[in-house]
Amino acid sequence: MSPIRRVVVIGCGLIGTSVACALRRAGVRVELADHDPWALAQAARMGAGTALRAGDGPADVVVIATPPSSVAAVLREAQARGLGTVYTDVASAKTRVLAEAERIGCDLTGYVPGHPMAGREISGPGAARAGLFEGRTWALCPHPALSPRALRTVSALASACGAEVTLLAPDAHDRAAAAVSHVPLVLSAALAARFAARSPDGDPGEVGALPLAAGALRDVTRVAGSPAGMWRDILAHNAGPVADLLEAMSHDLGRVAAALRAADDGPVAEVLARGNEGHARIVRALSRTREPERAAS
Amino acid sequence: MSPIRRVVVIGCGLIGTSVACALRRAGVRVELADHDPWALAQAARMGAGTALRAGDGPADVVVIATPPSSVAAVLREAQARGLGTVYTDVASAKTRVLAEAERIGCDLTGYVPGHPMAGREISGPGAARAGLFEGRTWALCPHPALSPRALRTVSALASACGAEVTLLAPDAHDRAAAAVSHVPLVLSAALAARFAARSPDGDPGEVGALPLAAGALRDVTRVAGSPAGMWRDILAHNAGPVADLLEAMSHDLGRVAAALRAADDGPVAEVLARGNEGHARIVRALSRTREPERAAS
Repeated sequence: MSPIRRVVVIGCGLIGTSVACALRRAGVRVELADHDPWALAQAARMGAGTALRAGDGPADVVVIATPPSSVAAVLREAQARGLGTVYTDVASAKTRVLAEAERIGCDLTGYVPGHPMAGREISGPGAARAGLFEGRTWALCPHPALSPRALRTVSALASACGAEVTLLAPDAHDRAAAAVSHVPLVLSAALAARFAARSPDGDPGEVGALPLAAGALRDVTRVAGSPAGMWRDILAHNAGPVADLLEAMSHDLGRVAAALRAADDGPVAEVLARGNEGHARIVRALSRTREPERAAS
Repeated sequence: MSPIRRVVVIGCGLIGTSVACALRRAGVRVELADHDPWALAQAARMGAGTALRAGDGPADVVVIATPPSSVAAVLREAQARGLGTVYTDVASAKTRVLAEAERIGCDLTGYVPGHPMAGREISGPGAARAGLFEGRTWALCPHPALSPRALRTVSALASACGAEVTLLAPDAHDRAAAAVSHVPLVLSAALAARFAARSPDGDPGEVGALPLAAGALRDVTRVAGSPAGMWRDILAHNAGPVADLLEAMSHDLGRVAAALRAADDGPVAEVLARGNEGHARIVRALSRTREPERAAS
């Protein structure tokens, strides 16, 4: 495969700036773009690269690190301007982004849908780290129109950032992302929401319980601190798989509640035992990669 | 209040042995009992105290650190043997234990229902730590029959272990414990259970998603590793408050799922924004005590 010498990163948030810093550390020339000049300047100050200039010719890869709802439009514009040979993105949901890109006429042969499984609860370029992707999974989603060369190039980019590449189809990715990331976020937020002030329908919630808060509540609600605006966009772009699993979880919780009311130990014992088993599998899966940072991805 | 010179701890698990070690560190004489001679010997080897001997006269406090389902029976037997002047326990649910104690004829004037808000995901005397309760909340639950002197004595015991005493009625405790501990555990277990092997009804679950696992899944499912047998007992003893809140959470998740299917952003945005607010309150509440250990309480 051809080496990656020059990359354009569009979107200087946490992930875009971290990708840029990781590539710079690997010796790649990086140019940056963001509609917010403050974010662009902060990323440049952090050593993520220099501002993109017109007329530089196509980069080896253009990384689109904007929210899911704008990826397709940004891709089309970048392709129209000839910014790169190969394009990728980092959005947490893939099927709908790919369909939007096709619908608005993007060239899909050079577009590699991607999703690095890393993040932090804080956002913006100031939170970026060159090491954010080290030992983490970076999902790439081949599709029928994709050229093998483009896939190899973006795999090399992810490897240069220190990540392990996993290939899976867009719909398989979206179901997996719902299970490991999007649904845990909703569970965490729904629990934390009960400790907010009085709800719109007048339910006083669980604020009075806060003096007894300890480790379990802290752990389960940690990702509920992630930026609400960003997550609205992500959930809207993976609505079907997230709704499927939320409905299943809603059913599971209702079943445990009914069993508790009926003093029927069986279903409660089963969920707890299977929870132990699932926990052990999750710990094993995470131990195969480096112990991740406190993450919201 | 009279100083605490001698304490009997019945039940040499994680909590009982940790209480014993904390009291020993504070200069209190501690005697230990457990139906499992191996656990008793291990606790003694860890410096938690010496084995209880017949004929030593009543201790200042007897701490019953057995599972919720055996507290009342152990209390009655300890009172019949005259082991102490004042009695307390450490079970995570209080109303039903208190009612059982009354039903089987325990003397309630000297029984102070208690619950130190500390724990670890691992259990047994080997996991005990003298510092487990430092800066943590220790709930005590006054009831109409209780003597003020007994309450003062057990408050002094909790303080000697380094904890902050919070007084609340048994039913208020149980609702609060459901919100901060028992329901987070069930949510965590129900999510982790989806990553166990194929379920009894043939659902293949989310095992295939494990390669994408990252920080969010790890955090939300951490307490799902807690001992299933212990939690069956705890949940059965706080069935009503836990079922109430699980039903509310089940409804909340169903509402988010329906909104996602309908592309109705409002309810999703509301849960995420209130999740941010609740998360901030939880962080503030926890920062008022010492940063707790990884805990399952």
